[in-house]
Amino acid sequence: MSNAWWLAPAREVDENSREQALARQQQLTKPTGSLGQLEAVAVQLAGLQGRVKPSVGKVWIAIFAGDHGVVAEGVSAYPQAVTGQMLHNFIMGGAAISVLARQLSAQLDVVDLGTVSPLNLPGVRHLNLGAGTANFAKGPAMTQAQLEAALAGGRDSVLRAQALGTELFIGGEMGIGNTTAASAVACSLLNCPASLLVGPGTGLDAQGIHHKATVIEQALHLHAEQAGDALGSLRALGGFEMAALVGAYLACAQEGIAVLVDGFICTVAALVAVRVNPSCRPWLFFGHRGAEPGHRHVLESLQAEPLLELGLRLGEGSGAALAVPLLRLACELHNGMATFAEAAVADRPA
Amino acid sequence: MSNAWWLAPAREVDENSREQALARQQQLTKPTGSLGQLEAVAVQLAGLQGRVKPSVGKVWIAIFAGDHGVVAEGVSAYPQAVTGQMLHNFIMGGAAISVLARQLSAQLDVVDLGTVSPLNLPGVRHLNLGAGTANFAKGPAMTQAQLEAALAGGRDSVLRAQALGTELFIGGEMGIGNTTAASAVACSLLNCPASLLVGPGTGLDAQGIHHKATVIEQALHLHAEQAGDALGSLRALGGFEMAALVGAYLACAQEGIAVLVDGFICTVAALVAVRVNPSCRPWLFFGHRGAEPGHRHVLESLQAEPLLELGLRLGEGSGAALAVPLLRLACELHNGMATFAEAAVADRPA
Repeated sequence: MSNAWWLAPAREVDENSREQALARQQQLTKPTGSLGQLEAVAVQLAGLQGRVKPSVGKVWIAIFAGDHGVVAEGVSAYPQAVTGQMLHNFIMGGAAISVLARQLSAQLDVVDLGTVSPLNLPGVRHLNLGAGTANFAKGPAMTQAQLEAALAGGRDSVLRAQALGTELFIGGEMGIGNTTAASAVACSLLNCPASLLVGPGTGLDAQGIHHKATVIEQALHLHAEQAGDALGSLRALGGFEMAALVGAYLACAQEGIAVLVDGFICTVAALVAVRVNPSCRPWLFFGHRGAEPGHRHVLESLQAEPLLELGLRLGEGSGAALAVPLLRLACELHNGMATFAEAAVADRPA
Repeated sequence: MSNAWWLAPAREVDENSREQALARQQQLTKPTGSLGQLEAVAVQLAGLQGRVKPSVGKVWIAIFAGDHGVVAEGVSAYPQAVTGQMLHNFIMGGAAISVLARQLSAQLDVVDLGTVSPLNLPGVRHLNLGAGTANFAKGPAMTQAQLEAALAGGRDSVLRAQALGTELFIGGEMGIGNTTAASAVACSLLNCPASLLVGPGTGLDAQGIHHKATVIEQALHLHAEQAGDALGSLRALGGFEMAALVGAYLACAQEGIAVLVDGFICTVAALVAVRVNPSCRPWLFFGHRGAEPGHRHVLESLQAEPLLELGLRLGEGSGAALAVPLLRLACELHNGMATFAEAAVADRPA
C-alpha cells in the first residue's frame, strides 16, 4: 500500500464556529435543549462547515452496486439478477431512492462496481471490477487490487459531489446478498458470533437465517487471520459496494463534506472507515436505526444516535434520504428562529 | 349538554381504498414491508382520504394558547407573561413553529383562548374565555360554558382549515403551566399516581418536579368525583388550549381531515377525545414521542406509534410539524414508485 490515501487525516472540526453555534442555540426562543437531537445536529454541522449558520441544501446520493459470490451458498430470498434490474430501476426513476432523490432535489449518482452479468446502462457508471465478488465461503471475496479500486470508486463519487458544492453526502447500496457480507465483516471486527448479528435481510425465514449464520460462522473460521483487521476483513468478507462506501466516507471527511449514513450495510462500512481512520468519525451522522437486528449492535459500537427508527430494511440510501428533511429543518430552526432579545420574550430566571 | 356535537360519529374509513392501497404497496419495487411504518401510514391515509394515492400537500397548523391558574402554585420554570409574549413571536415568525410552518408551506392559525393579561395582537384570534383557567388546586379549572366555548374554538379552526382544502391538521399549544394540567388530566383518566407521569416540563429541577407532583396529587383528591370521566376531568383539571385541541381532533374526524398529534399535551388531548368519542381514533397519527416521561405512558394507552423520537420537549406543534416530511415522503413513495411489472424487476419467488 504505497499510496494509502485513506489514512490521510480528516479535515478538523472548526471549534470556534461550533461554540458560536452552541451559544446561539441557547439564545433562541425556546427552553434550552427543547429541540433535542436537532440542536446537536445543527451545532455539529456548524463546526463541520465552519460557519455559525450551516446548510444542507445541496445533497448528493451515491448508490454503489455490486454482486456477491456468497449468494451461491443460498443466503438470499431474491435472485441475483435483481441487482442489475434495480440499477435500471434507479435510473428510470421507479425505485424508492429515485423518488426520494427527486423530492429532496438531490443529485443521484449510480455506480456499478461489478455485477454478475456485465451491464451497459446509460446513466450508470460501470467500473467493471469483476462479475461480483468471489464466494467468501471458499476464499477471499476480493483481491487487493479490487479492494483498492472499489475504495477509489467511492472517493471518485465524492470528488464529483465536491465539484458541485455538495453540503451533505449520502451513500446507498444495492447488492443481493450484501446483508450476509456486511454481517460477516461486522462479526470479524466486533469479534461476535454470527447469531448475534444475522437477520432476515430482504426476507429470509427462520430456517434461512439459521443457514446464513452457519455460512458466516464457517467463513469467519476460514478467514480467522483477518479478525479485527478492518481492511483485511473488508477484503476477505465484504463487497465491492461496501468498499466503495468506506472510500467515500473517508474521502468526505478528508474533503470536508458531512455524511449521512444509511442502514445496516452502510453502518458496517462506517465501522470499517472509523477503524481504518478514526479521524473521520466527527463527519458521520446516522439517518436511521433499521429492522435488521445487527444494525443496533453496530450503531452502539460506533456510539451513533440515528435520527429515525421506522422499521426500514430497504437500503439504497433510503433511510438516510428520509432523514434529510430533519437535517434541513434543524438548520432552518437554528438559522431562522428569533433570540429572546430579538423577540422581547422573557427567558427563564437565572 | 343539549347540543353535544362532539358525540357525533367520525367519518368512516373507506375500506375499499385502504385495501387497494395495501395491494399497491405489495407490488412496488422493494421487499414487502421494507419501508416499515411509512407503508402503514400511506395505506391508512388512503383509507381516510378515500383515494388509492393519498396526499398531504395542504397542511394546517393551529396553535391554541391559554394561561393556567395553577401556575400560582409555583409549578413552572417560566413566568406566565411568556404565554402572551410567545403569541407575538408566533405571528412575527421567530418561534420554532413559525419557522417550521414557513418551511412546510403550512397555514398557521394562532388562537388565544384566554391569557392572564388580555391581548390584542393583529393576526391572533382572541376568544377571551377568561384570564386563564382558575387554579385547579382550589376548584374546577373551567366552567361548563368555558369548556364548551373552548371545544367550539377548536372546531372553528378545523372548519376554517376545511374551507381551504386542508389534507392534514396539526394542533399545537402554548401555555405556561400546561404540562401540569395535562399530567393531572392524564392521571385522572388513566387512574395512575402523579409521580408516574410528572416530568420537568420546560425545565424544572428535581425539587420542582416533586412539588408539581404533590400539587397534582392534592388536586386529584379534590376532584376525585371526575376520575375516569373524560370531559369532567378536562373541565376540572385541564386548560382552555387542551379543550380546543379536543374539539379540533373530534371535528377533524367528523369532517374527514387526518390529524397529526404533537407532544405530551396534545396526546393527552387525543386521549380525552378518544375517551369522549372513540370513533375518532383512526383519524389520529402521532408525530413524535417526546422527552416528558408521561408521554410514553399516554401514547401506550392509545396504542399509538409515533414517527419520531428526538428528545423534543417544546410543544407548539413542533414535533408533529417535523414529522410532516415523513408523511409527505410516505405518500410520494406510495404514489411514485414503480411496480415490479412496470420496472421489469423479478419479484422474490413465491
